Amino acid sequence: MTALPHEDCMVVDGLQINNWDRGVLEELRAGRIDVVNATCAVWEGPEETLRSVGTWCQLAAANSDLLTLVDGVDEIHRARQDGRIAVMLGFQNTSPFGDDYRLVEVFRRLGVQIAQLTYNIQNLVGGACYDPHDSGLTRFGRYIVSEMNRVGMLVDLSHVGNHTCRDAIDASAYPVAITHSNPTWFFDTARNKPTEVIHALADRGGVIGCCLYPNVIGGERTTRDQFCTMIARLVDDIGPDHVALGSDCTQNWSEHFVSWLRNGRWQPPEANPTPPAWPTWPQWFSGPADFPVLTEGLFEAGLDEKTVRGVLGENWMRLFADVLVAEVDR
Amino acid sequence: MTALPHEDCMVVDGLQINNWDRGVLEELRAGRIDVVNATCAVWEGPEETLRSVGTWCQLAAANSDLLTLVDGVDEIHRARQDGRIAVMLGFQNTSPFGDDYRLVEVFRRLGVQIAQLTYNIQNLVGGACYDPHDSGLTRFGRYIVSEMNRVGMLVDLSHVGNHTCRDAIDASAYPVAITHSNPTWFFDTARNKPTEVIHALADRGGVIGCCLYPNVIGGERTTRDQFCTMIARLVDDIGPDHVALGSDCTQNWSEHFVSWLRNGRWQPPEANPTPPAWPTWPQWFSGPADFPVLTEGLFEAGLDEKTVRGVLGENWMRLFADVLVAEVDR
Repeated sequence: MTALPHEDCMVVDGLQINNWDRGVLEELRAGRIDVVNATCAVWEGPEETLRSVGTWCQLAAANSDLLTLVDGVDEIHRARQDGRIAVMLGFQNTSPFGDDYRLVEVFRRLGVQIAQLTYNIQNLVGGACYDPHDSGLTRFGRYIVSEMNRVGMLVDLSHVGNHTCRDAIDASAYPVAITHSNPTWFFDTARNKPTEVIHALADRGGVIGCCLYPNVIGGERTTRDQFCTMIARLVDDIGPDHVALGSDCTQNWSEHFVSWLRNGRWQPPEANPTPPAWPTWPQWFSGPADFPVLTEGLFEAGLDEKTVRGVLGENWMRLFADVLVAEVDR
Repeated sequence: MTALPHEDCMVVDGLQINNWDRGVLEELRAGRIDVVNATCAVWEGPEETLRSVGTWCQLAAANSDLLTLVDGVDEIHRARQDGRIAVMLGFQNTSPFGDDYRLVEVFRRLGVQIAQLTYNIQNLVGGACYDPHDSGLTRFGRYIVSEMNRVGMLVDLSHVGNHTCRDAIDASAYPVAITHSNPTWFFDTARNKPTEVIHALADRGGVIGCCLYPNVIGGERTTRDQFCTMIARLVDDIGPDHVALGSDCTQNWSEHFVSWLRNGRWQPPEANPTPPAWPTWPQWFSGPADFPVLTEGLFEAGLDEKTVRGVLGENWMRLFADVLVAEVDR
């Protein structure tokens, strides 16, 4: 029983990494998703990422009835009025910046509004969640964060190591995001965040997008009630303004892509004891079309309307309004 | 008073990073340098490094009377018989490999025989000498070292962080090099190496090239006697087989290049309190032409002929013979 219709809410998904086509866009529409942070680089370097942005331009042109590439919150509101999905381009790595801090502004001018500092392994910016040691934010990393602050790009810490998370939260002049992770107290994995990181994030005005990817919720058997109760507990812990959603949907990919995510070019595929495979999603949430069940679940977990609206999208919108502004325009 | 003529020795310089032209080559010839590890990448990524190798091919073609690009020790001996300088292409960073371990073999096939794991700042492979934290060798770094072992490329640890040095010495199946650094007990700077790193290197059969760059010897006032006495002490400490030379000569550059070395693209030039400038070299050693004074100095420091020959070049040659062989050819 839903206290307000899902379609009345501004719905923002903190991250999806689909193999985008018209079919996937229709799934987002079925799920009444208004805004999505769409990953356009994971391991890609500068030139490859330019091509990825080019691919997005083509997709947007060919499906302009369904989506529009947006820059900032005003364009998001216009897209919603037009009934089009607002796509914000985002990175899950700083590899597109290579070793050049100036590329932060270059990609911001191309519409990239969110960048995760590291993806699974250490890079020039800092340490990652799956490496045995975490260097913390490097000197180069401090320039990257400061450039992101300057040009209005949101720092994402989802796959980042905990030491580097703490450093980046401290280093950033503006609130930061964990677009798609859960607390380790819900499910203990390197991809989730310990309480001290989540508290530090929230204390500085940041937002965490609770994530539905099977490997960070403990597998397909995790129930909607367990997931939504986790959100309710997290709201109790850090307040209603700092909790949101980041589904991490991975629609329409073959097994080849999960191998790319896992191995990139940094390790030989045969290094994996078993070939990487996509996990099975819970029956109650298998893709973007299932977003309405979250609205239902959040009410059932006891959240009030204002809080549900916050979690579904308003908290991301407030953070975007705070952060996606160049310092020169503040 | 020299006990054997400098020109009778095989002279190998562990590293030079000149702006190469015919004039510089003639300086090497004046110094009777037979072999040099010539840096062809510092911050460059894969594509830029391909172009740098291309530039070397042009230089070699235009000056084939003076130099030849060599691959391995047999070609070095042939070059010496021909009276030509043997140039071994080398990297001062793993940036040419990008995030792709397979590029180790690609560049080895292009004649790159030596690669330093990091240059001053952290990268995907490990920590560097000038960063506040050193992660140690990463998982990607282990693949890089193992690929270097497999294809016969020498690991260089000169600008690498001490923790990553230790990890790399342990991880490498073959001896490794510090091509251009001194012990910190001679001059205490992050670019020099503490005793435990030097001992670990020597214990595994590695070689350290004592370096004449002013910033790692304590400045231009350091005397030839002090430098050569350091070498004699180091020979006493780790044995005559593990000590060599790596001048780090930087001939023919404008001030622009020292700024590139210092800042790369990772920090804005204005981050330096004062503009980077080339240091002044000691009057007794200002470039490749001054190599004969080292032979003289080594004898005066009390080293015997065999040890002098080792330091001047034979130790590098033995290491090259050990390491620059693909595993498939062992």
